Amino acid sequence: MFLSEYFLPTAKESPSEAKILSHRYMLRSGMIRQSGSGIYSWLPIGLRVLRKIEKIIRDEQNRAGAQELLMPTIQSADIWKESGRYADYGKEMLRFGDRHGRELLYGPTNEELITEIFRDTIRSYKDLPLILYHIQWKFRDEVRPRFGVMRGREFLMKDSYSFDMSFEEARSTYNKMFVCYLRIFNRMGLKAIPMTAESGPIGGDMSHEFLILADTGESQVFCDRAILDYSVSDSSIDYKSDLQHTVDKWTSLYAATDEKHDKSQENVLGDKLISARGIEVGHIFYFGKKYSQSMNARVSDRDGNMVSVEMGSYGIGVSRLVAAVIEAYHDDNGILWPPALAPFDVGLINLNVGDQASSQMSREVYQKLTNAGVEVLYDDRDERAGVKFADMDLIGLPLQMIVGPRGTKNDEVELKERKTGKIMKMSLDKALKKILEG
Amino acid sequence: MFLSEYFLPTAKESPSEAKILSHRYMLRSGMIRQSGSGIYSWLPIGLRVLRKIEKIIRDEQNRAGAQELLMPTIQSADIWKESGRYADYGKEMLRFGDRHGRELLYGPTNEELITEIFRDTIRSYKDLPLILYHIQWKFRDEVRPRFGVMRGREFLMKDSYSFDMSFEEARSTYNKMFVCYLRIFNRMGLKAIPMTAESGPIGGDMSHEFLILADTGESQVFCDRAILDYSVSDSSIDYKSDLQHTVDKWTSLYAATDEKHDKSQENVLGDKLISARGIEVGHIFYFGKKYSQSMNARVSDRDGNMVSVEMGSYGIGVSRLVAAVIEAYHDDNGILWPPALAPFDVGLINLNVGDQASSQMSREVYQKLTNAGVEVLYDDRDERAGVKFADMDLIGLPLQMIVGPRGTKNDEVELKERKTGKIMKMSLDKALKKILEG
Repeated sequence: MFLSEYFLPTAKESPSEAKILSHRYMLRSGMIRQSGSGIYSWLPIGLRVLRKIEKIIRDEQNRAGAQELLMPTIQSADIWKESGRYADYGKEMLRFGDRHGRELLYGPTNEELITEIFRDTIRSYKDLPLILYHIQWKFRDEVRPRFGVMRGREFLMKDSYSFDMSFEEARSTYNKMFVCYLRIFNRMGLKAIPMTAESGPIGGDMSHEFLILADTGESQVFCDRAILDYSVSDSSIDYKSDLQHTVDKWTSLYAATDEKHDKSQENVLGDKLISARGIEVGHIFYFGKKYSQSMNARVSDRDGNMVSVEMGSYGIGVSRLVAAVIEAYHDDNGILWPPALAPFDVGLINLNVGDQASSQMSREVYQKLTNAGVEVLYDDRDERAGVKFADMDLIGLPLQMIVGPRGTKNDEVELKERKTGKIMKMSLDKALKKILEG
Repeated sequence: MFLSEYFLPTAKESPSEAKILSHRYMLRSGMIRQSGSGIYSWLPIGLRVLRKIEKIIRDEQNRAGAQELLMPTIQSADIWKESGRYADYGKEMLRFGDRHGRELLYGPTNEELITEIFRDTIRSYKDLPLILYHIQWKFRDEVRPRFGVMRGREFLMKDSYSFDMSFEEARSTYNKMFVCYLRIFNRMGLKAIPMTAESGPIGGDMSHEFLILADTGESQVFCDRAILDYSVSDSSIDYKSDLQHTVDKWTSLYAATDEKHDKSQENVLGDKLISARGIEVGHIFYFGKKYSQSMNARVSDRDGNMVSVEMGSYGIGVSRLVAAVIEAYHDDNGILWPPALAPFDVGLINLNVGDQASSQMSREVYQKLTNAGVEVLYDDRDERAGVKFADMDLIGLPLQMIVGPRGTKNDEVELKERKTGKIMKMSLDKALKKILEG
């Protein structure tokens, strides 16, 4: 992409209502614009990040056997009355009538709708287990929307729903999603820690929140230092195998948010206990027959008896994740994108577009890298070097290649690693090789 | 995808409220479920078609220089009051208040919001021309939603908006979108005819609807038979060149919907005039300064004067297109997907899953094709052959490969072309080669 033609309205300042860093950087780097209270438009460079997150989630959910569908944003109030949540949900639910006075709402979540789809289509145990998910915009009418997309009203969520015949099978499905979530965040280059969460009316241990550590996080969290060294193996996981030991390995180490914190662990763990700030980016949750009973979602078992199915739900806040990543990965000059989520792989800076040699080398580099599948943002604007450096640092692409009149004479360029700030002068060939071979 | 594990609830019958064929086939083939009046959930196989359409549109819009962003579904009433359309729009606009009583609406279209984004970010002629688009759900509260996703209330639309400094530049942008639309529909394997459409208060000739011919179409259309033989060249079009002659070539032949039909053409064209039914799938439209003036979207020109920008909008009904394609391409047994839009490339039917040789050959075929990037839907269900044939015909994949106990002995399979019904017996190797090499 040529920056001179790209719709990327960057800014030096951000509006005073942007209180947190991710919000300020997202506005300043041209990722989003506010279009209403808690409602945002995603400009091209922001949308690219959103799509990269979606793609990783989709890949890993599919690999774990979940199937994608797409439910609408608008739902009928009827199904919420069936489940009993229409009265309970309160003012966060955006409710309205259509021209005929029928009660509608903007879905804040989809348990009811997916249960309705399930009960209308699935009749037999033979079609289970089943995991369905979608990535769709939700709306929650927060009293005080703030912190940009971290706590917006219209937000993008991936929500999965599982259907099983028995508790044992539901646990096996839960374990799949647990491991799938570890893989999703790992592929994004994030360290997201599963923490024991409130399990709701059903009780039990099958409820975990996944949190990213960030100094500016909304929640106080506590965990055993050792969990920071855990990682999911990159080798392919067999989702048909028993994953209990993987889940046990992760959950055996202490990790809890403030609400679930067990003070006695402070003595048990001593120096090994980390107290930090975290941001919730995912939540997986088993809720049994809560909706299948109230909404009559039953299938026949092997003996022909009709039984209510066991269910769970598994969410990732896609749009909020963008802000959470920025809270966790930034410096004073801007964002430090993990490579898997960066809107482009490389930022190419032409120091002097008036200089023919620089422009020619830049265009060649752009063409070579693009042809090799590398996503390049080429700053070909007629701007001062300082402006270009500042914008590129703000945007936060992992690598910058700097082309200028001094270097072109010797076929040299500079390669800058955004995260460390390290600048290396080298031959163009070596720089290209370094980018292409990682 | 193994059909035994796939969430594909097919049905022999469709509900009586499904009046048109595309609606019936979409329900019966498990593409959609109704989730409210004029509101649908897209099940996995339906979503695949939607995504293929989106991808083609995205590729071609990007190629033409349009840039993708994503505006929210919920908009503030304020901007619609600025443009003057809040009062005009009528009951099709879904309006509601949030918990603080602020007036909101579910966007039926996005001229106001994109104009607001533009005026807040673009200051200079240097940043023009600019074409922005998004693919987002819209809502129009139709009095009588019907015909499934053909005339739904919540529907997916691609809408682009252009910004230019002068009428001449706006025409050049309009031409780009005109040609881009020809390419989009051509890549989908559809014959969409551009027809002169109502141009609104601004007048002029820069308004075209794109219609697909289908016997069940909603509109009466008239056109010169010769236009059916027109096609856009597959060779790459240079969007930086002057496209006027391409547009002239297409628009010089008579083509109009009922409302714009000029009866005198019946004498002029005689036998060459076709009278047919059509379905509108796209609309491109120049509207000048209508919004830029009312909403004060101005940029400085070369001389430093602030001028209102010239605008146009360019829509494609993405979800409606799915139904339109089915109206145009089907037979008595089901859908006949154009290959570019088919949810899978090949349907693999294992006639007897109890027969080891058949199952082994089927799995090998599945693996080979999948590894080669071919999308295969493998019917591995323990069902009668008749059920499998009927379901596969209904779903409408372009090619079927049939594996059964009789063939496996001689390493033979049957290849069926869905469109013609032609069945060819051949060796497995030859069949694989035919699929892989087209």
